[in-house]
Amino acid sequence: MAGEVEFIADGTVTSPQGYVAGGVYAGLKSQGDEVADLGILMSQRPASVAATFSTSSIVSPSVTVSRQRVAGGSARGVVANSGCANCAVGEQGITDALEMARLAADHVGVDPGEMLVASTGIIGVELPMALIRKGIPGVELTAEGGEAFARSIMTTDSRLKRAAVAFEADGVRYHIGGVAKGVGMIHPDMATMLCFLTTDADVDRGFLQSALSQSIDVSFNMIDIDGDQSTNDTVLLFSNGAAGGSQFSGASESAGLFRDALERLSVHLAKELVRDGEGAERIFAVTVEGAASVADARLAAREIASSNLVKAMVHGRDPNWGRIMMALGHSGAEVEEPKIDIFINDIHIVHEGKAISYFTEAVVGGMNVPEVRFKVTLGIGESSATAWGCDLTEEYVTFNSAYST
Amino acid sequence: MAGEVEFIADGTVTSPQGYVAGGVYAGLKSQGDEVADLGILMSQRPASVAATFSTSSIVSPSVTVSRQRVAGGSARGVVANSGCANCAVGEQGITDALEMARLAADHVGVDPGEMLVASTGIIGVELPMALIRKGIPGVELTAEGGEAFARSIMTTDSRLKRAAVAFEADGVRYHIGGVAKGVGMIHPDMATMLCFLTTDADVDRGFLQSALSQSIDVSFNMIDIDGDQSTNDTVLLFSNGAAGGSQFSGASESAGLFRDALERLSVHLAKELVRDGEGAERIFAVTVEGAASVADARLAAREIASSNLVKAMVHGRDPNWGRIMMALGHSGAEVEEPKIDIFINDIHIVHEGKAISYFTEAVVGGMNVPEVRFKVTLGIGESSATAWGCDLTEEYVTFNSAYST
Repeated sequence: MAGEVEFIADGTVTSPQGYVAGGVYAGLKSQGDEVADLGILMSQRPASVAATFSTSSIVSPSVTVSRQRVAGGSARGVVANSGCANCAVGEQGITDALEMARLAADHVGVDPGEMLVASTGIIGVELPMALIRKGIPGVELTAEGGEAFARSIMTTDSRLKRAAVAFEADGVRYHIGGVAKGVGMIHPDMATMLCFLTTDADVDRGFLQSALSQSIDVSFNMIDIDGDQSTNDTVLLFSNGAAGGSQFSGASESAGLFRDALERLSVHLAKELVRDGEGAERIFAVTVEGAASVADARLAAREIASSNLVKAMVHGRDPNWGRIMMALGHSGAEVEEPKIDIFINDIHIVHEGKAISYFTEAVVGGMNVPEVRFKVTLGIGESSATAWGCDLTEEYVTFNSAYST
Repeated sequence: MAGEVEFIADGTVTSPQGYVAGGVYAGLKSQGDEVADLGILMSQRPASVAATFSTSSIVSPSVTVSRQRVAGGSARGVVANSGCANCAVGEQGITDALEMARLAADHVGVDPGEMLVASTGIIGVELPMALIRKGIPGVELTAEGGEAFARSIMTTDSRLKRAAVAFEADGVRYHIGGVAKGVGMIHPDMATMLCFLTTDADVDRGFLQSALSQSIDVSFNMIDIDGDQSTNDTVLLFSNGAAGGSQFSGASESAGLFRDALERLSVHLAKELVRDGEGAERIFAVTVEGAASVADARLAAREIASSNLVKAMVHGRDPNWGRIMMALGHSGAEVEEPKIDIFINDIHIVHEGKAISYFTEAVVGGMNVPEVRFKVTLGIGESSATAWGCDLTEEYVTFNSAYST
């Protein structure tokens, strides 16, 4: 049936046709058995690639190398490691990122310039290249290797983050698959968010990048775990056309369907990251409606989702709407206080800027759910946006100050 | 001796000549005996006034009323309450703020338009005017009343914040005194920072405002407790000329001395707020040097002082310099990674963007102090700035999610 997006919870980067992947334990992480820390994902045919990277002014040399290569528009795969971020190590970082990519390219038999590289883990220590040199030849790439690859990029993640979506257009069935890792930064600094996406649709490079940027804007750019941004954040999207069919472009009849499918997958993976936030017990969605512009709606939703006090109130299941008001006022979004309404899990608690005599116990009880929903209507325009955050818990603090002697 | 600023730790708003103050318990707070929650500070002579207020787009009507009156340039005093923020209550808030100021003006016998008003406490409930009407006539204003006044504005503060400075110019001894309250926002939302400053120097209004703005910029605008900003933040500075001497203006020979004295007092009070931050066990100073501009230095220092991960690492006494790097990269300040040096309590731990093999135990041990000092040198310019933050503790989270049932 055309026009519908099917969600595949146990899908992964090898769900689309023409991709192989794998991961091994090279010894970069100390956790021992059952742990992978070095992986390769590869398209079996030429592929185009789109990407977004950390906007920090201090980034890992792995980001620098991949960013240059993505600019060319095509790539065959990516080699990724966890345990070491290859960041803040001077010129050696570039040398090591280039060698790591070359070793992976040699192993799978593609041009070195077509291999991207990503790292996540400790900042400030050099990549142990001896282990990487020894590890790469052991990576077995198979069409079932998506899970092993996903495992190899995990750091403090408590579980795998992966999924796929499928849709049909003009009688052809297409897939988009993805894996991601989070989930905050811990001693001595994990750096941090990686997401790899693959599709067997043939997508025009310009459209691939615009569809990716759009979907990132409503997913990974709308989540907040602890307000900090990493030096290594990387999202890659490969398109290899292995499913056949005609090329998708912005002008295609099914362009919207591709966008919807990609957005659904991105939002799912982004929420998975928040759900697995360090110490998090529940997540919350903040939807801002009636804003003067999309930019304002995004600003307000993100500010509320990022507020330590809002996060703490979600932890305490406290319908503390004054904190939402405060974050809103601080956000810079245009607001008119007498037009603001606030809802918690659909219960109306503030009307025209003033408290309603709501039944507190019912609201508190209703907040005892895995995903609390806040809605704020500004009443001055037509634009809306949603952001997600996780609660701030004592465990987050304990986790992030764990070095204490 | 001219040119030196004397610090008076037990000074207060009534240390300068010509000011009286007092506070009573009106019943706005439930803590019982020994608690004041309603106070008046007043100059016995006409005074000029300068101020800065919350830049939030949602502010208390008390802020709205005071902002309008301060625009006139003169005022005789301020009436302040704690327990209720008079915020997010619709039009009633303006009515109540005006009545509260009028009642206080009548009580002390000045023009109602010359009385400012400030509130701090719960958001979203109306001022209990019956209690305020009953309370105001009981406020006794005396030259020893600075402490009672300081007590009446406390909310979650664990101790009084007050001090004064004195200096001599042209044979006249001048004072600047101040009280402040913090210290974060707790259930169901304290809103939040108030600071009242007085001087017996006669200061030209334009210079008074510029000196205040400058000193706020390096003190209250450079501290971070939890990254949230309040709807009620107010700093007032009165100048009544009671000490005699000639008027200070930007062109006065002693203008710099007045600025220095005001800055010293403001920085002291600002650091007192951080030190008393909810759950805080220690504070830290972040000095950024060698920045391309003052704006960049401020941006970088504030971003580092505001990072949850840096705050958590101070709590854990963990010399996690990767987190400082990350916050720096995220700040938007111009940086060149190979020129960055980092020091913790003067111990050099990062040189030219890379870790030095520093003696970890010594650095960890050295962080067990009430005030940890981070210095970051960017090596690309001549500008510097300092910001202060407090550590993020499990107690902060417990405190701010305390409603949990």
